Amino acid sequence: MFEEFLEKQLSWLGDSSENIIFSSRIRLARNLSEYPFPHKATSSQREEIRERIKGAIFKLEEFKDSIFVNMEDLNALDKQFFLERHIISQEHMVSSSGKGLMISSGEEISMMVNEEDHIRFQILAGGFRLDELWEKINYFDDRLTSYLKFAFLPDLGYLTSCPTNIGTALRASCMLHLPGLVMTRKINKILELLAKLSFTSRGLFGEGTQALGDFFQISNQVSLGLSEKELIENLVGIVKQVREQEEEARISLVKRQKITLEDKIGRALGILRNAYLITTKEALSYLSLLYLGIDLGIIKNISQKVVKNLFIVIQPAHLQKKEGRMLREEERDYVRAYILRKRLKEDV
Amino acid sequence: MFEEFLEKQLSWLGDSSENIIFSSRIRLARNLSEYPFPHKATSSQREEIRERIKGAIFKLEEFKDSIFVNMEDLNALDKQFFLERHIISQEHMVSSSGKGLMISSGEEISMMVNEEDHIRFQILAGGFRLDELWEKINYFDDRLTSYLKFAFLPDLGYLTSCPTNIGTALRASCMLHLPGLVMTRKINKILELLAKLSFTSRGLFGEGTQALGDFFQISNQVSLGLSEKELIENLVGIVKQVREQEEEARISLVKRQKITLEDKIGRALGILRNAYLITTKEALSYLSLLYLGIDLGIIKNISQKVVKNLFIVIQPAHLQKKEGRMLREEERDYVRAYILRKRLKEDV
Repeated sequence: MFEEFLEKQLSWLGDSSENIIFSSRIRLARNLSEYPFPHKATSSQREEIRERIKGAIFKLEEFKDSIFVNMEDLNALDKQFFLERHIISQEHMVSSSGKGLMISSGEEISMMVNEEDHIRFQILAGGFRLDELWEKINYFDDRLTSYLKFAFLPDLGYLTSCPTNIGTALRASCMLHLPGLVMTRKINKILELLAKLSFTSRGLFGEGTQALGDFFQISNQVSLGLSEKELIENLVGIVKQVREQEEEARISLVKRQKITLEDKIGRALGILRNAYLITTKEALSYLSLLYLGIDLGIIKNISQKVVKNLFIVIQPAHLQKKEGRMLREEERDYVRAYILRKRLKEDV
Repeated sequence: MFEEFLEKQLSWLGDSSENIIFSSRIRLARNLSEYPFPHKATSSQREEIRERIKGAIFKLEEFKDSIFVNMEDLNALDKQFFLERHIISQEHMVSSSGKGLMISSGEEISMMVNEEDHIRFQILAGGFRLDELWEKINYFDDRLTSYLKFAFLPDLGYLTSCPTNIGTALRASCMLHLPGLVMTRKINKILELLAKLSFTSRGLFGEGTQALGDFFQISNQVSLGLSEKELIENLVGIVKQVREQEEEARISLVKRQKITLEDKIGRALGILRNAYLITTKEALSYLSLLYLGIDLGIIKNISQKVVKNLFIVIQPAHLQKKEGRMLREEERDYVRAYILRKRLKEDV
């Protein structure tokens, strides 16, 4: 199933020349006013909600090529696959009737139905494009209101299952690649500062996950009391500051530890090109160095795009979808190493 | 000084197809009967001894192209350089008057004068060639007796400064590359067994040194009570048995852990080809894997000869002789990595 996704080169990753800000994302939470929140609704209510939402989606011309699946029709591997592509949450993988998933052609837009809220509407893009994403998702949100009535109170804004989301019900985030701050040991201080300023930082796969490959996701913690535009503006401001810190850290590394840096990056490339067994964690940490090396001009002949793609396709469910069967851990490590050897050689 | 040695490709290493037995060596200890042993002799006696021996050497037609140096004329770097080439011992590096060194053209034959004995005469060759080496060194030893009178008693044989060498005063040794026995954790049991059978095992740089790069030197401990031929025959027998054990270990590794082995060897090559800083110890351990990989056919396009050579030329004094100046540790690590990158790429 979903073999077509494997063929596509994750088009949302884009060709951005932005090296530090890997991707931008906005998600809106919405609930239908006539129904209880998913965890309070009955099974049949949840199924009704799903049908209503599905109906509305396909009324929009822009979504006529999108796919919609009922989560109970997906096996564990399919779910893991969509998690790895940042299309669903870990919460949405848990079995429960009435859950649904819409994915637009190209994967830029997706919607989880009956996760924590009736609708979790997401838009994703490579690079630093929050303003543009906001324009787009706001437009689609408006279009949906022609067919769906959302729970909304003038004083509070949009109502959501979890009170932390009430108001704009918007979460904007950027995935930042911060190897410079990690290497110069400045990252923890910056993450603490972000927390004080009410921004949340998370690992590669959202809430509760570890920072892998030096990726950190920064998002707004507050959704109430400010307009959507203001929330996004604040995030844009903070992300720019973190980017600046990362740039400074990189300059300082090149200035003070050039050879050590070349050594680390060179070894990472050497291992990725020659290993026969490699875990996801190890591969991500070497790809992180490679990605940094390309930005710094230390690595030539390998495109940023190839590495961006590898960050995603070396993940366990991706490997298994590619092979068309479940793989034991050692088999995955073998297939992962094979893909890395092949992709990083071909590109030269 | 000795720049000509750097140009030569260590010709004694040879083109042997023997992969496990890296090199063979025989040394004879001799003392002139008219003089006390070096540590009992006076400074002027030692200088006289050196002149006598030097005179005898240059009377032999075969040695007319050899060089002879007084050890006091060498600086610390030169001494370290010859140690790394297995031409002198650590003992011979210690300052003391009257010490000398003869090296034949091609470095196959060398002689330390006034080390522990008046003469330590050595012959070296790549591969497993003890019989051939014995014929050669025995011939030269005979030729020298035309010009020098050696201390010899019919009942005891050759007299030597240390009683453990009395008799034949012969030590034969082979340098074995035993990564299979190291990886299968059988090496310690084998070394213990060798000790019980009165064979000595040592690291890459002789007595008291650590086994680096999975190299082990095996030699006879006894020099008395058997003829030279018998001593060599016994060593040949034991070395063949160890080689067989190593072959079995390699077969078992390929059979049971092929991918893990390919992974280790591949990563070693990747690091050697891409590092910018590397210590001697790390380089030797990766070169060891590479050398094994060539033997097993896992590594193609890199010749055994190039790797054999690298084992020697990446050593600290070699790097410094090549650069023509003393280098700090980090500079050596940098130059070493540069040579490895260059040599292992050129060969493809």
